[in-house]
Amino acid sequence: METRNHESGKSYKRVDAFEKVTGRAKYTDDLCDRNAYVAKILHSTIAHGYVKSIDTSEAEKIPGVVKVITCFDVPKNYFPTAGHPWSTEPAHQDVADRLLLTDHVRFYGDDVAAVVAEDEVAAAQAVRAIKVEYEELPFVLDVHKAMEDGAPQIHEKYQNNILAHTSIRNGNYEEASREPGLIKVEGWYHTPTVQHCHIENFICYAYMEQGRVVVVSSTQIPHICRRVVGQALNVPWGQVRIIKPYIGGGFGNKQDILYEPLCAYLTTQVGGRTVKLDVSREETFVSNRVRHSIDFHIISYVRPDGTYAARKFESFSDQGAYASHGHSIAAKGMGCFPQLYPCPNIEADTYTVFTNKSVSGAMRGYGIPQAMFAMESHTDDVAKALGVPPYEFRMNNVMPKGFTDGFSKNVNYYDTFRECMEKGRKDFDYDARREKYAHQTGNIRRGVGMSVFWYNTGVWPISLETSACRMVLNQDGSIQIQLGETEIGQGADTAFAQMAAEAVGIPFDMVHVVSSQDTDVTPFGTGAYASRQTYMAGFSIRQTGEMLKQKILETACELTRQMKENMDVIDGNIVRTTDGEVLMSVGELATEKLYSLTNNGHLTAESSYQIKNNAYSFGCTFVEVEVDIQACKAHVTDILNVHDCGRLINPALAEAQAHGGMSMAIGYALSETLLFDEKTGKPLNNNLLDYKLSTFMDHPDLKATFIENFEPTNPYGTKSLGEPPACSPAPAIRNAILQATGVALDELPMRPHVLFEEFKKAGLIQEGGEANV
Amino acid sequence: METRNHESGKSYKRVDAFEKVTGRAKYTDDLCDRNAYVAKILHSTIAHGYVKSIDTSEAEKIPGVVKVITCFDVPKNYFPTAGHPWSTEPAHQDVADRLLLTDHVRFYGDDVAAVVAEDEVAAAQAVRAIKVEYEELPFVLDVHKAMEDGAPQIHEKYQNNILAHTSIRNGNYEEASREPGLIKVEGWYHTPTVQHCHIENFICYAYMEQGRVVVVSSTQIPHICRRVVGQALNVPWGQVRIIKPYIGGGFGNKQDILYEPLCAYLTTQVGGRTVKLDVSREETFVSNRVRHSIDFHIISYVRPDGTYAARKFESFSDQGAYASHGHSIAAKGMGCFPQLYPCPNIEADTYTVFTNKSVSGAMRGYGIPQAMFAMESHTDDVAKALGVPPYEFRMNNVMPKGFTDGFSKNVNYYDTFRECMEKGRKDFDYDARREKYAHQTGNIRRGVGMSVFWYNTGVWPISLETSACRMVLNQDGSIQIQLGETEIGQGADTAFAQMAAEAVGIPFDMVHVVSSQDTDVTPFGTGAYASRQTYMAGFSIRQTGEMLKQKILETACELTRQMKENMDVIDGNIVRTTDGEVLMSVGELATEKLYSLTNNGHLTAESSYQIKNNAYSFGCTFVEVEVDIQACKAHVTDILNVHDCGRLINPALAEAQAHGGMSMAIGYALSETLLFDEKTGKPLNNNLLDYKLSTFMDHPDLKATFIENFEPTNPYGTKSLGEPPACSPAPAIRNAILQATGVALDELPMRPHVLFEEFKKAGLIQEGGEANV
Repeated sequence: METRNHESGKSYKRVDAFEKVTGRAKYTDDLCDRNAYVAKILHSTIAHGYVKSIDTSEAEKIPGVVKVITCFDVPKNYFPTAGHPWSTEPAHQDVADRLLLTDHVRFYGDDVAAVVAEDEVAAAQAVRAIKVEYEELPFVLDVHKAMEDGAPQIHEKYQNNILAHTSIRNGNYEEASREPGLIKVEGWYHTPTVQHCHIENFICYAYMEQGRVVVVSSTQIPHICRRVVGQALNVPWGQVRIIKPYIGGGFGNKQDILYEPLCAYLTTQVGGRTVKLDVSREETFVSNRVRHSIDFHIISYVRPDGTYAARKFESFSDQGAYASHGHSIAAKGMGCFPQLYPCPNIEADTYTVFTNKSVSGAMRGYGIPQAMFAMESHTDDVAKALGVPPYEFRMNNVMPKGFTDGFSKNVNYYDTFRECMEKGRKDFDYDARREKYAHQTGNIRRGVGMSVFWYNTGVWPISLETSACRMVLNQDGSIQIQLGETEIGQGADTAFAQMAAEAVGIPFDMVHVVSSQDTDVTPFGTGAYASRQTYMAGFSIRQTGEMLKQKILETACELTRQMKENMDVIDGNIVRTTDGEVLMSVGELATEKLYSLTNNGHLTAESSYQIKNNAYSFGCTFVEVEVDIQACKAHVTDILNVHDCGRLINPALAEAQAHGGMSMAIGYALSETLLFDEKTGKPLNNNLLDYKLSTFMDHPDLKATFIENFEPTNPYGTKSLGEPPACSPAPAIRNAILQATGVALDELPMRPHVLFEEFKKAGLIQEGGEANV
Repeated sequence: METRNHESGKSYKRVDAFEKVTGRAKYTDDLCDRNAYVAKILHSTIAHGYVKSIDTSEAEKIPGVVKVITCFDVPKNYFPTAGHPWSTEPAHQDVADRLLLTDHVRFYGDDVAAVVAEDEVAAAQAVRAIKVEYEELPFVLDVHKAMEDGAPQIHEKYQNNILAHTSIRNGNYEEASREPGLIKVEGWYHTPTVQHCHIENFICYAYMEQGRVVVVSSTQIPHICRRVVGQALNVPWGQVRIIKPYIGGGFGNKQDILYEPLCAYLTTQVGGRTVKLDVSREETFVSNRVRHSIDFHIISYVRPDGTYAARKFESFSDQGAYASHGHSIAAKGMGCFPQLYPCPNIEADTYTVFTNKSVSGAMRGYGIPQAMFAMESHTDDVAKALGVPPYEFRMNNVMPKGFTDGFSKNVNYYDTFRECMEKGRKDFDYDARREKYAHQTGNIRRGVGMSVFWYNTGVWPISLETSACRMVLNQDGSIQIQLGETEIGQGADTAFAQMAAEAVGIPFDMVHVVSSQDTDVTPFGTGAYASRQTYMAGFSIRQTGEMLKQKILETACELTRQMKENMDVIDGNIVRTTDGEVLMSVGELATEKLYSLTNNGHLTAESSYQIKNNAYSFGCTFVEVEVDIQACKAHVTDILNVHDCGRLINPALAEAQAHGGMSMAIGYALSETLLFDEKTGKPLNNNLLDYKLSTFMDHPDLKATFIENFEPTNPYGTKSLGEPPACSPAPAIRNAILQATGVALDELPMRPHVLFEEFKKAGLIQEGGEANV
């Protein structure tokens, strides 16, 4: 199936390429007035306790300090931070547990006071000069300990610190597990706390204009930000205006409202003067958001014929100190358990639990990378226990074509898992490598592994899915498009431009995307998350494009006297379809219409579309690793992602998206983990020297390929791609190490410390460290 | 007649008051990146000639100089500069006679070369270091000499330098003038070259983004500017984006395209880097635009009974060196001649003539202040010749109620002239003063005088009139409105907000005006000129407001199940009109609609309205002067403007508008004139020290009052007010001096030099200067 026009599906250069590679693109800091006041935050230096008193007198004496605001000064408006659309039903609203500043500090790095100064140096000096007296409380860092009776209570109303616990029950697990002859496979799988490490740290600035608060912010979610700032300041939401310039990545961290409310509040305290709040990398690690560390426990009862009889799933998600996106992540992770390998008897439980650590929020994959590590490591463990090749085991068990999820109503329209796996197997030359590495010896060993994943596009029906678009026709037949959906570095604007060109019938380079969102004028959209944008925006772009085209054709009818139904807009021209004659260009039409003395008008179109659909994206990763047993080091020597993300809007950008996710996942697999001191709760490596972010030095050439299946629910046949590439590499690497060494690792990152312990247990190396090879 | 709601008609505080009085409002210079390159222009130092060669070598050596561009470098795309809507018919297009830089210089101050440098100092040094060799040609400064055969030819294709000549012929002037017993009154009246003297000099900056040129400019006409920049650079107009921030006044000068095209071109020559072009006050006087100096010749044949038998009118308008707004101004001035005092036999001719002087363009009043000085001075001269009081003479002769102009179809719906005159007569205590000052002697004498004016709102049917509006509903029931019509200091945004509030049915403070126009997203509008905005924008605001209200009521129907036709939006609430019950607030409705999981949508409305109507504004000025005969000085001791500008949208702002125009007119009457050296063509007083701008030190308390007549063609009953206050004070002052001294002056400004000569002629002072009193 093909759409009529052909501007989507081409590898156009990004619309923002030139600006970004030349450094000319304006980011938040570039736009901020240099006279702006600078704000800095005093973070707590204990993991749990109360602020008894704050002495700001020394800080206030520092020249250039304008205002010191403490947790005792701010209004007590609790607000939620998660980047979800608002729900008008209180039961479905995100947990409102944040204050602008707090006297009940719940993690090392919580926000206690803020300084506004004339410059950065004065602000930094003042933050250091503030003296805080704390009443310390016991704290808890481990999710399991946090659930014990008698553990420190982090938020009042949650018993055993459990923010939420949800379950799935299909069939009868207990009974089914007693079927004779079953093989039981059980595992615990641990995923670490990691951080997004987007290039641009969080930054925003705020000022007042005509009594309203304006916040310019590096956010993924401007319209949601407006609402949260309104809640935090307790002002009508129309009194808040959010502007989002280009941003240097987000990966979900900027799908939380971070410090926009505080910055907005601070400007109201200094007479509306511009206040800039620029967060350091060290703060970003600790006081923004991190990926949930989740512990999984999976038990599978499998028949000798390779079919599942009964399965049990438990997960324990470390929320950190505040609710943020909360249980959504753990729940999404659990949600794929009964779908990935359907089994009639399932018992699944997931818990999201507060600890006195940095707050967990959204991060690329939203629970699926964690879940996939557990589930797909477990799949290899099951295959191994059964003695069947893991590829074949998956082929026999994964979600079949036609599978429909009862809740989301998503349908597996193609036999996508198998298509992706087959393509990967062939392109990666998997069988030959698998055979070649089957019996490795020596210190340096290679192995191949694989993993599948699925990902749900967007958030319907859990939450609202809507997109809105406006198009403005220019005199030359080019258009501007405005969308609430945001360019955050992923290339969204380019995809939008291609879809808009196709919808209206004009060339790609005639579409100018208004990249910056401004809640005053940008049509309402919820922003960049859940890999929703290309899918969701497609609906309103197509609808709005059709509206604009109809207006163009009505005008063409006025001007040419040809029947509207006999004309179409093709490649920027009004074409009489009955004979293919070009009657005039859209530019000539627009110019005449704009300046007509008889029947003038400007042609624009705007509409919103509520999307009550959703789509699965699928894919898999094939990996080859080389393991240096003595060095306890695994290194990825080859990697291939295969994706079915529907029809590709821009193949080159799709490939780039996949590369980015794979890179992130390699770090997740092998090196990244944010560590906390057990004695104090203090983060130990919250900087890019000590936190081992994966870089291109750690990667082989990243390879990505696609199975294009036209997603029938979407006007452009597309579905999610932003997050999926990060979901399956880690378990594939783990499974490759398993082939190479026979060691089944159960913990990420698989750094030397972990390999050392496991290789020792497996007898691959001796207690002293020499390899037994 | 009243509109339903009552947010228009109230003296609300300006929406931008706080920002502007606190200095926080951002103007173009405030927004410009401080790293921007700085451009400066080299202006010609001869009045007429050719550039033979330019030596830029010394300029290029100056550290910090990035680029020197000369008239030999720029493309030869001739473009028009007048701020009129485009016409798709070539015959109706403005004259395209400008180049970015020119080698044929036509006035002292023409644009020969430009420098782009890293800072202002380097740019200024480089401009001074450029060496230009000219071939000088004879030049002409006087409009009558310019029309002589053999005068220097300024533009090739215009014979005798006449840009245009138009005529009106009604009845038979020659025959009618031979009626026996007629009294002939003849006069010549001269008006000077003056400059707008807005607070903010012209400034713009330009940069490239995604291959397009963006210009941020202090302009009254962003959408027109886009078109002209496109023409000047010969690029499709959609490749140009214009942003207009707050501007510090324009008064018509910024209704021309000044240096936006040059600045846009310069950024394309430096790789798209930001280039700022900030014009000094001295340049503003000379190389921007000035008000047309016009000479008038009027002959009236009047019967002893005080009725006109035949009238002749000639005017000669000094266009300066380029066409700009050209003949429109002289033609508008002539247009009122047959209408103000209808007479069956009229012969009128007006000529617009090039001279080698600064370019004349639009300025507050657009030809009417000049014409009123001539016509209303002449009216007093006629009354004097007849021996009838000038007030009564006007009452008997001015345009009667019901008068309809054949061309514009404007109707005088009320007996407005007489209403205004009667109110002024009473409020000013005119009769008593007239009586009191009837027989003045001594050196210090007082007199009262009056003058009427009319003014045509907008430009239809000469040119396109259209307005467009977009409204965006927020969660709290407030809205943003976007319009192509511009706030230029006059208070337009506040009037728009009031009209929008009234149209939708929400309180004034729930309307947020998007003050800055951005051609990428702002609905098409032609901008601020011809006192059109409140009248014209009213149509699209009312229409768009109704559309938004209908969408709100449709949503109310969904949410309340009440019949749409049984509901209205009143004061921000959905009211069931059948019993007055408040069903919900618009904010509750908007929130539910935006976040509804069943039927979501964002509520916005957008529409454009072509206005094929027009309206007369009327008014008069009453003045008392004190004349010091020996000092040859006239001083205004009391002044009152009376206006019928329809229904007032904001009475306080209307009064402020009147005050501004009166102040400008007092300067026009008594002190302001831009002088040129006859030997060189060099402007002599192009600075605010030597140019005698009227200030509040020169004024008495300015008084303005209004006759409110609901203009039936407009949805809010309003009509023009921006320019009218500047139209009638000068002749009223002249007529007051006439009463005080018996001397009928025929030249503006009536500065001591003029009074000295005329008082001598009248025998009021001796040759040596002593008063004969």
